[in-house]
Amino acid sequence: MTNTEKSKKGVLLLAAGIKGAIGSTVAASAAIMQNQPENVLPYLTTGEKFPFLGKAGQMTVAGWDTDPVSFDRALDCCGVLEKSLWEPCIPELNKIDVRPAPDAGMGVKEQVAQVKADMAAFRNQQPGLVPVFANLLPAGVCHELHGFSTLEQLYQAAARVPADIVYAAAAVESGIAVVNFTPNDLEIPALVSAAEAAGVPLAGKDGKTGQTYFKVVLASSLLARRLHVNGWYSLNILGNADGENLMDPQYAACKLDNKTGVLEEVLGYAPGEKRHNRSAHKVHIDYYPPRGDAKEAWDVIDFEGIFGLPMSMRINLQGRDSILAAPMVMDLARWMAALTLAGRSGPVPELAFFFKKPVGPDGPVGFEKQMAALEKLEKEICP
Amino acid sequence: MTNTEKSKKGVLLLAAGIKGAIGSTVAASAAIMQNQPENVLPYLTTGEKFPFLGKAGQMTVAGWDTDPVSFDRALDCCGVLEKSLWEPCIPELNKIDVRPAPDAGMGVKEQVAQVKADMAAFRNQQPGLVPVFANLLPAGVCHELHGFSTLEQLYQAAARVPADIVYAAAAVESGIAVVNFTPNDLEIPALVSAAEAAGVPLAGKDGKTGQTYFKVVLASSLLARRLHVNGWYSLNILGNADGENLMDPQYAACKLDNKTGVLEEVLGYAPGEKRHNRSAHKVHIDYYPPRGDAKEAWDVIDFEGIFGLPMSMRINLQGRDSILAAPMVMDLARWMAALTLAGRSGPVPELAFFFKKPVGPDGPVGFEKQMAALEKLEKEICP
Amino acid sequence: MTNTEKSKKGVLLLAAGIKGAIGSTVAASAAIMQNQPENVLPYLTTGEKFPFLGKAGQMTVAGWDTDPVSFDRALDCCGVLEKSLWEPCIPELNKIDVRPAPDAGMGVKEQVAQVKADMAAFRNQQPGLVPVFANLLPAGVCHELHGFSTLEQLYQAAARVPADIVYAAAAVESGIAVVNFTPNDLEIPALVSAAEAAGVPLAGKDGKTGQTYFKVVLASSLLARRLHVNGWYSLNILGNADGENLMDPQYAACKLDNKTGVLEEVLGYAPGEKRHNRSAHKVHIDYYPPRGDAKEAWDVIDFEGIFGLPMSMRINLQGRDSILAAPMVMDLARWMAALTLAGRSGPVPELAFFFKKPVGPDGPVGFEKQMAALEKLEKEICP
Amino acid sequence: MTNTEKSKKGVLLLAAGIKGAIGSTVAASAAIMQNQPENVLPYLTTGEKFPFLGKAGQMTVAGWDTDPVSFDRALDCCGVLEKSLWEPCIPELNKIDVRPAPDAGMGVKEQVAQVKADMAAFRNQQPGLVPVFANLLPAGVCHELHGFSTLEQLYQAAARVPADIVYAAAAVESGIAVVNFTPNDLEIPALVSAAEAAGVPLAGKDGKTGQTYFKVVLASSLLARRLHVNGWYSLNILGNADGENLMDPQYAACKLDNKTGVLEEVLGYAPGEKRHNRSAHKVHIDYYPPRGDAKEAWDVIDFEGIFGLPMSMRINLQGRDSILAAPMVMDLARWMAALTLAGRSGPVPELAFFFKKPVGPDGPVGFEKQMAALEKLEKEICP
Ligand SMILES: NC(=O)c1ccc[n+]([C@@H]2O[C@H](COP(=O)([O-])OP(=O)(O)OC[C@H]3O[C@@H](n4cnc5c(N)ncnc54)[C@H](O)[C@@H]3O)[C@@H](O)[C@H]2O)c1
Ligand SMILES: NC(=O)c1ccc[n+]([C@@H]2O[C@H](COP(=O)([O-])OP(=O)(O)OC[C@H]3O[C@@H](n4cnc5c(N)ncnc54)[C@H](O)[C@@H]3O)[C@@H](O)[C@H]2O)c1
Ligand SMILES: NC(=O)c1ccc[n+]([C@@H]2O[C@H](COP(=O)([O-])OP(=O)(O)OC[C@H]3O[C@@H](n4cnc5c(N)ncnc54)[C@H](O)[C@@H]3O)[C@@H](O)[C@H]2O)c1
Ligand SMILES: NC(=O)c1ccc[n+]([C@@H]2O[C@H](COP(=O)([O-])OP(=O)(O)OC[C@H]3O[C@@H](n4cnc5c(N)ncnc54)[C@H](O)[C@@H]3O)[C@@H](O)[C@H]2O)c1
Ligand code: NA
Ligand code: NA
Repeated sequence: MTNTEKSKKGVLLLAAGIKGAIGSTVAASAAIMQNQPENVLPYLTTGEKFPFLGKAGQMTVAGWDTDPVSFDRALDCCGVLEKSLWEPCIPELNKIDVRPAPDAGMGVKEQVAQVKADMAAFRNQQPGLVPVFANLLPAGVCHELHGFSTLEQLYQAAARVPADIVYAAAAVESGIAVVNFTPNDLEIPALVSAAEAAGVPLAGKDGKTGQTYFKVVLASSLLARRLHVNGWYSLNILGNADGENLMDPQYAACKLDNKTGVLEEVLGYAPGEKRHNRSAHKVHIDYYPPRGDAKEAWDVIDFEGIFGLPMSMRINLQGRDSILAAPMVMDLARWMAALTLAGRSGPVPELAFFFKKPVGPDGPVGFEKQMAALEKLEKEICP
Repeated sequence: MTNTEKSKKGVLLLAAGIKGAIGSTVAASAAIMQNQPENVLPYLTTGEKFPFLGKAGQMTVAGWDTDPVSFDRALDCCGVLEKSLWEPCIPELNKIDVRPAPDAGMGVKEQVAQVKADMAAFRNQQPGLVPVFANLLPAGVCHELHGFSTLEQLYQAAARVPADIVYAAAAVESGIAVVNFTPNDLEIPALVSAAEAAGVPLAGKDGKTGQTYFKVVLASSLLARRLHVNGWYSLNILGNADGENLMDPQYAACKLDNKTGVLEEVLGYAPGEKRHNRSAHKVHIDYYPPRGDAKEAWDVIDFEGIFGLPMSMRINLQGRDSILAAPMVMDLARWMAALTLAGRSGPVPELAFFFKKPVGPDGPVGFEKQMAALEKLEKEICP
Repeated sequence: MTNTEKSKKGVLLLAAGIKGAIGSTVAASAAIMQNQPENVLPYLTTGEKFPFLGKAGQMTVAGWDTDPVSFDRALDCCGVLEKSLWEPCIPELNKIDVRPAPDAGMGVKEQVAQVKADMAAFRNQQPGLVPVFANLLPAGVCHELHGFSTLEQLYQAAARVPADIVYAAAAVESGIAVVNFTPNDLEIPALVSAAEAAGVPLAGKDGKTGQTYFKVVLASSLLARRLHVNGWYSLNILGNADGENLMDPQYAACKLDNKTGVLEEVLGYAPGEKRHNRSAHKVHIDYYPPRGDAKEAWDVIDFEGIFGLPMSMRINLQGRDSILAAPMVMDLARWMAALTLAGRSGPVPELAFFFKKPVGPDGPVGFEKQMAALEKLEKEICP
Repeated sequence: MTNTEKSKKGVLLLAAGIKGAIGSTVAASAAIMQNQPENVLPYLTTGEKFPFLGKAGQMTVAGWDTDPVSFDRALDCCGVLEKSLWEPCIPELNKIDVRPAPDAGMGVKEQVAQVKADMAAFRNQQPGLVPVFANLLPAGVCHELHGFSTLEQLYQAAARVPADIVYAAAAVESGIAVVNFTPNDLEIPALVSAAEAAGVPLAGKDGKTGQTYFKVVLASSLLARRLHVNGWYSLNILGNADGENLMDPQYAACKLDNKTGVLEEVLGYAPGEKRHNRSAHKVHIDYYPPRGDAKEAWDVIDFEGIFGLPMSMRINLQGRDSILAAPMVMDLARWMAALTLAGRSGPVPELAFFFKKPVGPDGPVGFEKQMAALEKLEKEICP
């Protein structure tokens, strides 16, 4: 290990699902950023924040994936980035330390121990960097593990535990901050109390990247003008793995509920109750091959002004799912590294800006409040 | 005058252009609000603010128009509100004190004197109410009156002066706050210094009601995510008088430049410079009879994420111009009444939320900053 | 019965489901057309066709509905037409002869007999008019009655038979033409052969009123330019009874399959097979209260030109379901009356223009072919 | 010249403006088609038509351009096709015989003579092929040359003559069919009568490639249902040279008038007259850099059904101008070659399908009529 690695400041981003659409895009961005910063840095919101963490470009990536394929094969198959962009970095990409997922057949404690060992190894390779764990696993099935008050109880009693919780428990026990970008529910009491005890900050859940981000923004702007929303229909069509995966109703369940609850929270009322005395906020996600990773969202918002006169707004977002998500994961890693150094522990509701279902009590609601909360938090952790 | 009128708290809204699409809608709303508050109050942002001003419903309207037609005829021809909504209030509506505009042929000082006399008369009729002057005149021609440092100089030298400035000067000299909802430039040095001297607050200019409001909101949300805007095309089609009027290029000029400058201000860069080294932000307003007062806006936003990968958003707003504008004018009247009582004088940049081209130095820029400024201002003026 | 009724030429439209959204709109249109033809006639495609049938305005309506409510109450609750439009015709509307549906508990033959008796009564009231039966019942459950070769066998064996088939059988046995505007499958072998034997023409099925009509039109135009369709996503949101009804998956099944099959038929290939080797044509129907009867459709079409370069078209149709459907039902009644007089029997594939799933062999496919077929058919039946 | 060239059947496409966006795309397609037919042939409507002309792939291209740059440089700068598509054909592309435009300073007759000499040379190189001249020059200024009855008179009197007419006159005098894909007016009496006398077929004018094509299709479908159009607003934003050129009002004039007249012709009435007693059909073309060659069109159509109830349709076409145009130019070349062999002369109104402003008397109007006319014409010229 060279001296520079020893004394280098920056962030060590440890991702579960690192070969997925978002994970591989984050890894490629971190690599390409070293010599072509203009491709990534201008699109990070923390580019000039937290100087004590070193330049935003100082980020090393490692992690886990069940997919044994080589990193460049993974990038190729996800089809998010043109090959010409990352081809020059194939050597560094294929040197990324990707460990297999622990065998789900083993006992929970054993699985956690394996991940903790990986984390210790990752840390030794990059002593100067502040490690942050990012959960980028596929949308999983909802589970019922809220009954346990400590991780120990969980390990004893729970037969099967979703991979998300194995990784998160290992991180908490290793004193490593956790970012849950998935809709999966890993903020169970056992884990939250362990994090608080261990002085580990937790952020999540379910990245607010595209349609839902703009939904919160527009809902905040309609509320700010007292324009009453009578109905909001959101269609999502996408053609990547995440999309195909969401076609399985049980998986879509968590995702959908995160996307629907958001609106009522921002507006303070359920659209549809006033004029139709039933909810008129629907979110439909559908798999549509031609879109690939380029998710398309179509929204219609029915609202009324004085005298209940109806008006409507239709929004068509032709986005790129993982291109919107990757910079958010990198920003969250820098936030969590800074929060770790600032000694924050447990859920960080002030990061609600990044999530569909922010964890932690009394988080800011609405776009302007969430932006103000970020500004305030930055002042608190930057001396 | 009955006792109640004498001791009644509330706002006296004096509007130039009171029989226009916005003015008549404001007048009808103020009348209907007395017995059917549910039709208007829930849509006011100041509904529960400034208790010291009395209930938001306590608002009396008076003003000027060149159109001699009766008030119900004016409402009918503007076609904004269904007749069934205001028919029951025709008696009160036709009792609204509407004075003719001063003869533009007279000397400027004489015209101002006539308006001041009207203002004094309006005040005597409603002693308890705090008067506020709202400029709702048609989009006028840009003028060149920036050379005068005092109103006196203006009166002596200027041969022709736009009606906007006559009314505003009269208001300032009568100690009455001024709200400029039009794109017309009445915040000339002579008037601003007079307002500051007379302790009269000024708010303006060009109400940010529909497309431009959501443009500022979305631009702020894109900046918040460091998504770089490469181009923004805005189409406006409307079929009311304001629309037909704007087809006259010289009138459209002020309007258009207000709508174009806004974006660069919020983003901090000119969309198009980076990828096309020329501006790629265009606003086109067109007269399209089928829309009537229901202005329709179509926007396409081209933005890029990491690696400059292009994404786009298209927004179609089917609004109702004057239905969006009227409650803003009523809210502004209550803000300015409160600011008058709080002793504020001169431009009030903190009200940037309401305007395309906010007057006054260092006003807040961007949706979240403008919302925060309103919150701060309210705390300052409400003990 | 006055002499005029005896000798009057025209069409007697007998509708099952006459108090529904389409049925009541047809009835109101027929009544209002008598003294305000300008409200309806210009929107009929058969306005100037078939002079031998008398003026298009000469149409009398009668039929069946399970809903006992008065006709004006039905119109009010469907909310399709403003009350001010049909209020003057309430007397004629409430004089429309609406008979109850036969008790579904009775034997099939008995139910058919009751409907035949009603039909005979209707005919006697309007001897001069040519009767046509229009099926406007709600989208029903798919059934399995294809095994019977004659109506007699059907009556003997089938325990339960959908109402559609009871009415259609009664019509065929009464020598009355049948128009099936519903997606329900009543063109079973037993009925078709009976119709052919009795010299009764049959048209159907599932009215092609809005999104599907324009889908056929646009698909034909893309094929005409050899622009290959790689994917087509259709969203339908509506808030009327038909909408609520379609939320029941089993009912939606027939409707959806009619809407999906159409595209492949017109294009001659399954969109998605070439680039994604799986179908990429999806139709999603969702219940969205704010729309009421004003169905909204959103389509995205992904197509490619030379070199497979991708292009796309997005269409947003803000229609009025029953307002688009009613004139088609009236036009179909005049076509079938003319076809009856011209001695046509059995399915009339040439009327494919009107239907999502045209019945009968070798019907014209594609907008231009369907228009040419109508032109040819008209020449054949008009001497 | 090898034997194959002598006896080869097919089309010799001679294009003025061959290095432009459309011209270069046609040339690249013709070259690539030789060994990768699947990239072009499936998108030609005449792919299987006119076997007597040889396979559709048998097309050789030559022509004129004022731009001296090499062919691959031209393709690169137009930015229509990815370099990877045509790079392998650079040798053939740079062998294309491109002659300079005649010096506009010379006398008209001399210019025509020079072009005729070029045409003779082109023909000698490809004796077997049927030559067709395609006008792909930029949208030019309207001119006034309708007064001349013969080309001879034109040559004598006219000082300056647009290049379009120079090329077209040379073609007619060389017995070569003319396709006018531009909005420029070259069908002046002198040229038409010369074409008729020389037995040369003429097709034009102004290719109906994107928005206008679908406008004719949708207008035909609304008329077919007697849905009355009250207004139609068309926005076009594009960023290629054609777009920048159209920003010059005098050039846009011809283009715009072609795009506006079409609708009234198809509908048989002027949208807006009935409800607003003034035209409500507007077309606005604007230069918007981010689009490049990928023209985007946004249309809103306001139409009414029974009782004048308003409905609306909005269409957003994200097309690729030259990708839509190139195959049409190739198809037109094959049609005109076939028509030449079939002895047709003068304007060919039956090709109205391809043009915004079809030349020649009593051409078919409306999508279905234009398709039927193509079918009929093909039967006439294919024994
Ligand atoms: N893309 C977005 O805009 C967005 C927005 C919000 C939330 N999310 C969520 O983020 C998550 C990741 O999205 P994605 O598009 O990258 O998904 P993806 O399916 O492309 O990637 C998931 C990766 O996890 C790997 N994996 C599966 N099980 C594993 C295990 N036990 N251990 C380690 N790796 C495992 C898979 O092999 C795959 O490489 C999903 O839950 C998605 O719902 C995505
Ligand atoms: N409606 C909106 O959404 C909106 C948004 C921002 C700004 N504005 C601006 O607000 C202003 C009013 O809009 P509107 O739609 O009510 O316009 P309008 O044309 O309907 O009303 C203007 C009224 O002013 C009257 N008038 C003209 N000259 C006068 C004079 N010298 N004295 C007194 N009255 C006179 C006219 O008779 C008319 O009744 C315009 O400048 C418009 O550009 C409107
Ligand atoms: N509206 C459209 O654009 C459209 C287009 C294509 C097809 N359709 C189909 O047309 C049919 C009618 O549509 P709608 O919107 O009028 O439906 P609706 O539900 O409003 O009307 C159906 C009527 O049938 C009556 N009914 C139910 N059972 C009956 C029975 N056994 N005998 C007699 N009457 C009975 C109901 O009381 C109701 O009045 C549906 O099948 C619909 O799917 C509608
Ligand atoms: N692209 C479309 O969808 C479309 C549709 C309808 C009509 N059109 C019309 O087709 C024409 C060509 O379109 P484009 O996009 O290829 O334009 P372009 O500007 O890209 O190409 C025009 C070419 O003509 C060349 N030229 C100019 N003057 C010349 C002369 N005197 N002799 C020979 N060459 C000359 C230019 O150098 C250029 O290479 C335009 O008139 C356009 O309005 C285009
Ligand atoms: Na506005
Ligand atoms: Na339909």
